[in-house]
Amino acid sequence: MKDFAAQDENFELRVRESFSRQNLMKTIGANLTKVLPGEVEISLGFRDDLTQQHGFIHAGIVATLADTACGYAAFSLMAADAAVLTVEYKINLLSPAVGESVIAHGKVTKPGRTLTVCSGDVFAVKGGDKKMVATMIATMMSIRDREGLAG
Amino acid sequence: MKDFAAQDENFELRVRESFSRQNLMKTIGANLTKVLPGEVEISLGFRDDLTQQHGFIHAGIVATLADTACGYAAFSLMAADAAVLTVEYKINLLSPAVGESVIAHGKVTKPGRTLTVCSGDVFAVKGGDKKMVATMIATMMSIRDREGLAG
Amino acid sequence: MKDFAAQDENFELRVRESFSRQNLMKTIGANLTKVLPGEVEISLGFRDDLTQQHGFIHAGIVATLADTACGYAAFSLMAADAAVLTVEYKINLLSPAVGESVIAHGKVTKPGRTLTVCSGDVFAVKGGDKKMVATMIATMMSIRDREGLAG
Amino acid sequence: MKDFAAQDENFELRVRESFSRQNLMKTIGANLTKVLPGEVEISLGFRDDLTQQHGFIHAGIVATLADTACGYAAFSLMAADAAVLTVEYKINLLSPAVGESVIAHGKVTKPGRTLTVCSGDVFAVKGGDKKMVATMIATMMSIRDREGLAG
Repeated sequence: MKDFAAQDENFELRVRESFSRQNLMKTIGANLTKVLPGEVEISLGFRDDLTQQHGFIHAGIVATLADTACGYAAFSLMAADAAVLTVEYKINLLSPAVGESVIAHGKVTKPGRTLTVCSGDVFAVKGGDKKMVATMIATMMSIRDREGLAG
Repeated sequence: MKDFAAQDENFELRVRESFSRQNLMKTIGANLTKVLPGEVEISLGFRDDLTQQHGFIHAGIVATLADTACGYAAFSLMAADAAVLTVEYKINLLSPAVGESVIAHGKVTKPGRTLTVCSGDVFAVKGGDKKMVATMIATMMSIRDREGLAG
Repeated sequence: MKDFAAQDENFELRVRESFSRQNLMKTIGANLTKVLPGEVEISLGFRDDLTQQHGFIHAGIVATLADTACGYAAFSLMAADAAVLTVEYKINLLSPAVGESVIAHGKVTKPGRTLTVCSGDVFAVKGGDKKMVATMIATMMSIRDREGLAG
Repeated sequence: MKDFAAQDENFELRVRESFSRQNLMKTIGANLTKVLPGEVEISLGFRDDLTQQHGFIHAGIVATLADTACGYAAFSLMAADAAVLTVEYKINLLSPAVGESVIAHGKVTKPGRTLTVCSGDVFAVKGGDKKMVATMIATMMSIRDREGLAG
């Protein structure tokens, strides 16, 4: 995994500001816990209102966290005037997401002018143990010419 | 697309009962609007607290609906004592999910004893128009021997 | 599935000419059997030198055919001066590819200026029966400004 | 990435024997260059008869190598009497595969009794430089009860 350099020195501010406008992140109680060039981490405390029928955190929430971490990992390397959209992703659910909290890591695999490919891993933290519960590959797009899209 | 026959005549009851235990579906206000053998539809009214930074329904919610519709489409064809888990899925976001509501269709492509492959399409409804906003392929697993998993 | 209109009236010629330059297609003996706007079919007779360890056509060949059919389905709707590249795809192998021949259908789901999303289905033909053996979602990219890439 | 222990001490022999029965690997000239528990590497010298229309190694071949490396990485951890089949995979093509050779690494992310999830990375080697050209997540299945499938 290479280290990347951000082209916009205000990348962290830009990521945090955009994240704060994602209403869904507030609704589910997700927090941005790391912002580096090409690498973002999002954490979520376990909540019973986010579960599926067996009491695990719903795969949809696990994927949402990974997708968002990947999106902002890509966004952190984009130009200051770019917006980011998810083109597509694929996720494998490896183990049930149970425990006290869930942490999603998103990292850029290959940055690009238009498309950025990222990988995401999600971990469940239970009693001090950290277990990988999901793995993702995501394709993100930089949008620079569409009005109404900021960040 | 073939028609499938359910091996459990109570498949609809079983799907509805399991769906009702998905706390996340209550939290986001999703409704089960169609249950046929191998085919399930889930609807969601637009809600500002489920948006991403540009005001669209978050890709994670779009994916959650498609994943859940695919999961129950698979579950509808499973044995009465089986539980269903998502192995993996891949989703392409085709257009921003804007409008009054979002509808996710999940259909079984290939049922199997252990694995069932499904396709999911998500539509945004705006002023009477229905526009496809996402497409998914998902792999679901039938679990019959793990205690503590029901439905 | 909508019908699409080609923006380049010579789309079929362009597709056939590009296909003929794919050495791999010659190597494996694949044929372009249908070219419509947004829809392409590729066929391959069973060959023992393309099998995996159980004597089925190798998943890699099944995927190659679906990827190529999707790529040309996308390419058929692109501008006359565009080249096409595969961004990514996901494929589920549903059944072993056994029989006399394999047919891959690629269809455009959503065309776009930069990205085109396609779906691909692969069928094995055996004794008159046609069985679906794989299903794919693929993302294709239109490249218009990179020298050295034609078609 | 954890290290894994093989449950069958003859895992390398089993992998090499199965690989040698993959006719497609002979046809394209691929070689098994590393076999460890949960990790397999396959190499291929550049060949003009495996190219797509721009002279790059065809994405289908890149994917075939990654799929096969992932499949044998999974197989190396399986029981002595198991066969392996690819359930599905997703691949992103990051850069054109040009150069003297292509190397595919497959590694197990999460082994399982029925399903094993793997990641695959493909590199192109050109003039001493090694460049990542593709990344994959794959789901493999252990088959133990179907007659006619060995290895």
